[in-house]
Amino acid sequence: MRIIRTAAELRARLEPLRSGGIGFVPTMGALHEGHLSLLRAARAAHGTVVLSIFVNPAQFDRGEDLAAYPRDEARDIELAEASGVDLLFAPEAGEIYPPGFRTTVSVGGAVAESLEGAARGRAHFDGVATVVSKLLILVRPDAAYFGRKDFQQLLLVRRLVADLGLPTRIVGCPTVREPDGLARSSRNVGLGPEERRLAAAVPAALSAAVAAVRQGVADAEEIRIRAGRALDRPGLGVEYLALVHPETLEPVAVVTAPTVLAVAVRIGATRLIDNELLDPAPIEG
Amino acid sequence: MRIIRTAAELRARLEPLRSGGIGFVPTMGALHEGHLSLLRAARAAHGTVVLSIFVNPAQFDRGEDLAAYPRDEARDIELAEASGVDLLFAPEAGEIYPPGFRTTVSVGGAVAESLEGAARGRAHFDGVATVVSKLLILVRPDAAYFGRKDFQQLLLVRRLVADLGLPTRIVGCPTVREPDGLARSSRNVGLGPEERRLAAAVPAALSAAVAAVRQGVADAEEIRIRAGRALDRPGLGVEYLALVHPETLEPVAVVTAPTVLAVAVRIGATRLIDNELLDPAPIEG
Repeated sequence: MRIIRTAAELRARLEPLRSGGIGFVPTMGALHEGHLSLLRAARAAHGTVVLSIFVNPAQFDRGEDLAAYPRDEARDIELAEASGVDLLFAPEAGEIYPPGFRTTVSVGGAVAESLEGAARGRAHFDGVATVVSKLLILVRPDAAYFGRKDFQQLLLVRRLVADLGLPTRIVGCPTVREPDGLARSSRNVGLGPEERRLAAAVPAALSAAVAAVRQGVADAEEIRIRAGRALDRPGLGVEYLALVHPETLEPVAVVTAPTVLAVAVRIGATRLIDNELLDPAPIEG
Repeated sequence: MRIIRTAAELRARLEPLRSGGIGFVPTMGALHEGHLSLLRAARAAHGTVVLSIFVNPAQFDRGEDLAAYPRDEARDIELAEASGVDLLFAPEAGEIYPPGFRTTVSVGGAVAESLEGAARGRAHFDGVATVVSKLLILVRPDAAYFGRKDFQQLLLVRRLVADLGLPTRIVGCPTVREPDGLARSSRNVGLGPEERRLAAAVPAALSAAVAAVRQGVADAEEIRIRAGRALDRPGLGVEYLALVHPETLEPVAVVTAPTVLAVAVRIGATRLIDNELLDPAPIEG
């Protein structure tokens, strides 16, 4: 595995490898089993696997501590090597945002403006869209892999790739979970032991919603109330808990078609998001 | 010469031609000698020359009549063929902006916000930046050619290409002028005979500024006043007449280094822009 710090070197090294196919996994590092599942999917499908590790300053909102985001490059390098990564691109911020940088890629509409967009502010998804565009232009992979845990980010990336005509297939991979259901996330390391136990309320809320839909409940507000009960715990603050259309993210009032339940909570200093696709079809069949 | 209407066909046809080098001239059609000079520059330097003709709705501001923009595809095709164009890409608007399109590429700062950005509104350069990004991502040329008449657009394109890391060299080509000095522009066809005579005041204003600098005038306001006199004609409205830094577009107060004099006027229903680089060096040498 080669570790690359500059765009120019990455571009040059990729050129002779293009004919064998390139799979790309963009990350902010602090690799966990979720990322490794993306790398496995890429490894199985392409001659060359590129992993990027870049804690993107542009997508952190003011209130959030960019400096506090977990970083452990040595461990990430080991995990990447063990996962069969060929090229690890780990640039400094100045390589991605050189002096005079003034360009923003921005996706409009509910896909960028609701849920995470509303909670974290407009700049968050602008930061995501801009850095993902830059990385996809640089790597020009045949496919790029993203986790469904960040399903709104996945929709946003699909939108911008279609809109800009980037020649990359976007692959969404299933959320990887802990034994108690907690979605794997780099942010989980910020949870203390008691907070970690409390965090199990998030997948419990999703399960309550799935159970409600299985029981034939279609009223979104009723489903939301049942899911919300699991979150009604001291020390857990709900930022949003919403039933939305899986592509437009418009609010859903009655669950008669696949609907996403999206949730964001704060536990202490840690912010967690998760989501579940609620599919009413099984009860009708 | 092949005429291509879809991005998919253009992408497929370009692939086997890449090794010979690709030069690209993006236009809104209504081709004139200015465009042809860009095509000649591209023809001399690359194995394949791609011309795009797309009247980009996104870069027209509300007040302006998109429908009134001159179009003559049959004549453009003849001129392109005669200029040695290999691939003419002339898509419909729906090919560039399909249903659900929501992505904008935006350049911030004075390069996008002053002069034309201030006069035509923020959406104008967002429209330019978005369509140029899409076209450069699609064509992925070795070089793309732009006229210096639209010098602010040229700066904006250089900025976004550097910022997004697009692998294309941007070439700025000299403004082509009529015998009386009027810059060639697709918009000139909108001028009636009397308006056409009046339009010669624009290059006359630029010449007055050049003469002032040659005479040793360094005070920007004095240069501006002398240039402005040439424009003080009934039926000619000055939108802006400004001395600015050639890269940052910041206002210049004293001309001690190369400075751009930029001008926009309205004559009847036609809006004209032009510019000249004022170089004080000759008087110092």
